[in-house]
Amino acid sequence: MRVDHLAERLHSITPFYVMAILRRAKELEALGHAIIHMEIGEPDFPTPPLIIDAGIACLQSGQIKYTPAAGLPALRSNIAAFYQQRYSVTVAPERVFVTPGASGALLLALGLTLNPKDTVLMTDPCYPCNANFVSLLNANALAIPVTAATHYQLTPELIDDCWHPGVKAVLMASPSNPTGTIIPPLQFQHCIDAVQRNGGYFYSDEIYHGLVYGSAAFTALTWSDQVFVLNSFSKYFGMTGWRVGWLIVPEAFIEAAEKLAQNIFIAAPTHSQVAALAAFEPATIVELEERRRQCSERLDFLYDGLCRLGFTVPIKPEGAFYVYANCSAFTDNSYQFALDLLETEGVAITPGIDFGRYRANEMVRFAYTLPIDTMREALNRIERFIARA
Amino acid sequence: MRVDHLAERLHSITPFYVMAILRRAKELEALGHAIIHMEIGEPDFPTPPLIIDAGIACLQSGQIKYTPAAGLPALRSNIAAFYQQRYSVTVAPERVFVTPGASGALLLALGLTLNPKDTVLMTDPCYPCNANFVSLLNANALAIPVTAATHYQLTPELIDDCWHPGVKAVLMASPSNPTGTIIPPLQFQHCIDAVQRNGGYFYSDEIYHGLVYGSAAFTALTWSDQVFVLNSFSKYFGMTGWRVGWLIVPEAFIEAAEKLAQNIFIAAPTHSQVAALAAFEPATIVELEERRRQCSERLDFLYDGLCRLGFTVPIKPEGAFYVYANCSAFTDNSYQFALDLLETEGVAITPGIDFGRYRANEMVRFAYTLPIDTMREALNRIERFIARA
Repeated sequence: MRVDHLAERLHSITPFYVMAILRRAKELEALGHAIIHMEIGEPDFPTPPLIIDAGIACLQSGQIKYTPAAGLPALRSNIAAFYQQRYSVTVAPERVFVTPGASGALLLALGLTLNPKDTVLMTDPCYPCNANFVSLLNANALAIPVTAATHYQLTPELIDDCWHPGVKAVLMASPSNPTGTIIPPLQFQHCIDAVQRNGGYFYSDEIYHGLVYGSAAFTALTWSDQVFVLNSFSKYFGMTGWRVGWLIVPEAFIEAAEKLAQNIFIAAPTHSQVAALAAFEPATIVELEERRRQCSERLDFLYDGLCRLGFTVPIKPEGAFYVYANCSAFTDNSYQFALDLLETEGVAITPGIDFGRYRANEMVRFAYTLPIDTMREALNRIERFIARA
Repeated sequence: MRVDHLAERLHSITPFYVMAILRRAKELEALGHAIIHMEIGEPDFPTPPLIIDAGIACLQSGQIKYTPAAGLPALRSNIAAFYQQRYSVTVAPERVFVTPGASGALLLALGLTLNPKDTVLMTDPCYPCNANFVSLLNANALAIPVTAATHYQLTPELIDDCWHPGVKAVLMASPSNPTGTIIPPLQFQHCIDAVQRNGGYFYSDEIYHGLVYGSAAFTALTWSDQVFVLNSFSKYFGMTGWRVGWLIVPEAFIEAAEKLAQNIFIAAPTHSQVAALAAFEPATIVELEERRRQCSERLDFLYDGLCRLGFTVPIKPEGAFYVYANCSAFTDNSYQFALDLLETEGVAITPGIDFGRYRANEMVRFAYTLPIDTMREALNRIERFIARA
C-alpha cells in the first residue's frame, strides 16, 4: 500500500509565491539575462571579518562538539550584556536561549506556549513563516488587516476587539517585514499591556533590530519581563547562513525551554556560536554601524525613486531593508505585475500575496539589499516597464 | 497579569535524567576529581581534516548566505550518489532534504505526516527525543517493550498486535540507541511490509549507519521507496556540532517537504553544508573506516570487561557506540547505581530510565567514545565500586 496523504497542517501552510519568481529569475539568468534581485530578504554585505576569523579559529581546533542545549554560556552572557548596553534593560543570561536561527527561536517560543487550536493574533501583512509555524503546532494564526494609519502594526484597540476565548497570544514585529515600520513606543507598551490584561502571551519579533534609520527601535523587554523576544545574528550582524539566533523567555519558562531545546535542536551550530562571540566586539559594531548608514542611504534612494515613478508608500519605512509599495496606479494584480516586470525587464520583486490577503493585490515588496548603482538601473528598468504598460 | 502556564505537551516531554548526572559530574570536576565520561553520545574524534578545510575555505570567502531550503544541490547529489555506492540503492537527489541535524530531519518527517493525536509506534528502550518530537506535534508515542530475543527491535508480529486505528506510523532505528543492535534484514523487510500493509508511514532512523562492526546495516530504502529515512553527518562523519543531517522522502512528499522546510528552517547552516561536501571524499572515508576499526576494538574491550564484572549484555551490540548493560546483579535501581558510581568512583553513565520504562531500573548505558586506556581505568573503578557495594 502506498501512503501519500499529507498531514492536515500542510493544507494551511502557504507556499511562497516569490519562489515562482525566483525560479523564473534563475531560468532567465541561465539564458544570459542580467537579473536585478530585489526579492530576497538577505543582506548583500559579507559577514564582518572578526566574526569570520573567530569561526575559522574554531574550525582550526578540529573540535566542533555539541554545546549545551541553551547555547555557549559566554554567548548567552554576551547577549544579556548587549541588552544592558544597547537598551538599558537587565536580562539574566539564564533567560537567553541560543537557537538555530530566529526560526528555532520561534519554534521554541510557540512550542512552550501553544496548544492545538489556540489562536495567535498577528498583522496582515506579516512575514509568512510566522503563521506557518503556528500551523506546524496545530494552532491557528489570525491575521488582522492593518494600515499605514497604525504604522502597519496592531494597536491595543485591535487586540481587544479581536480577542476571544481561543486567543492565546499576539505576535508583533518591529521593524516589520514587509513594511519596515517600527511600533511607536507608546503603542508598543499599550499593546503589551492589552495582551497581558487579556491573559495572553506576547511574542516580540525583533530580528531587524539594529537596522533602523530614524527613531530607535525599542525592545519589548523595556516594558515587561513576561514577554518572549526573538532575535538573530542574521540581519544586522550579517550572519544569515550561519543559522544562529536567540530567544529570551520569562523566568518561569527557563526550565521548560531547556528541556524543549534539548529535545528539538540538541544545540545551535557550535562554530556559528563561537563566531558570534565576536559579533559584539567594538570593531565589529563600528563596521555594522557603517553598513547601517549605507542602508539608510539606500532606503532614501529607493523610497524617493519609487515615489517619483508613481508607487505609493504611505509611510516611509524606518527599519529592516524593505519598501512595501502600492502599485495600484499600474495594475490590479501585483503578482502578475511582478511576473511581467521580471519577464520584460529582469527585475525580481516579491508580490504582496506572500504577506497576507488584505489588499495584497495592490502591493509589492522591494528589498534594498543592493548597491545604489544597481538600484538606479532597477528604477530605470521599472520606469521603462511602467511606460510601456 | 502574569502568564506562566506551559503548553500541555511540556507535561509529556520527559527530562533527561542523565542531565542530573552531567551536572554532578561537572561539580565534581570543578572540585578537582577526574571524571570518566561514558554518558555522552558524542564521538571523541575530531572532525576529519578535509571537512575542516572545506569549512575554512567557505568561511574565508566571507559569503555565508542562505542555501536553497532543501540544501546545496551538490550536497543533495553527493548524498544520493552515496546511496548508490554504499547500498546499491537509487535515490533521486530531489528526494534528499538537507536539514539542521537529524533533529531537523525528524521534525520535517513528522511535520509532513502526523496529525494531532496520531500514534507512532517505537521501541522501549528508544532514543528519548523521538517520543518528545512526537509530543511537540501533539501526537502520541507508544513505546513497545522489546527484548534481546528480537534484537531489541520491533517485529512484524509486534507491529500487527499493537496496530489500532489511531496508529499512523512506526519509527525504527538500526543501529539502535541505546542497545547498539541492528535489525536483521528479513525482520527489517517484514516490519516495513507490516507497516505498509496497515497503511502507515515508516520512519527509519539510520543515524548510526557506518558505525557497524559485524554484519552490514541495511537502509530501509533497500525494500521500499515509500519510507522516510533519517541520517546525519554527526556520528560516522564526526560532525556533531556542525548540525547537518538529511531526510529522504517518498517522491509524493517532495513538494510538501520543500514548502515545510522553507518555513521551519529557511535552510541548514551553509558552511556546514559546504564542509559536508568533503565528507564523501575517498581520503575522508579511509580515515572514517580506520576510526570504525578503533570503535570495533573499543566495543570488544568494553563488552568483555563488563561481562567479566558481572553485567549482563544479552546481545552483543553490532553498531553505534553504546553498550546497554543489565546491572541487576548489583542493584534494583539503576539510576541510583549511576549516581553512586559517579559519586564514589567518578564514572559517569546513563541510567536506563532515560530510554523508557520497561525494566529500565535494571539497565545502564555505557558509551565507548573513549580510548581503551581510559576505559580500562573506568572498568577498574567500576570493579572497585561493585566490590564495595
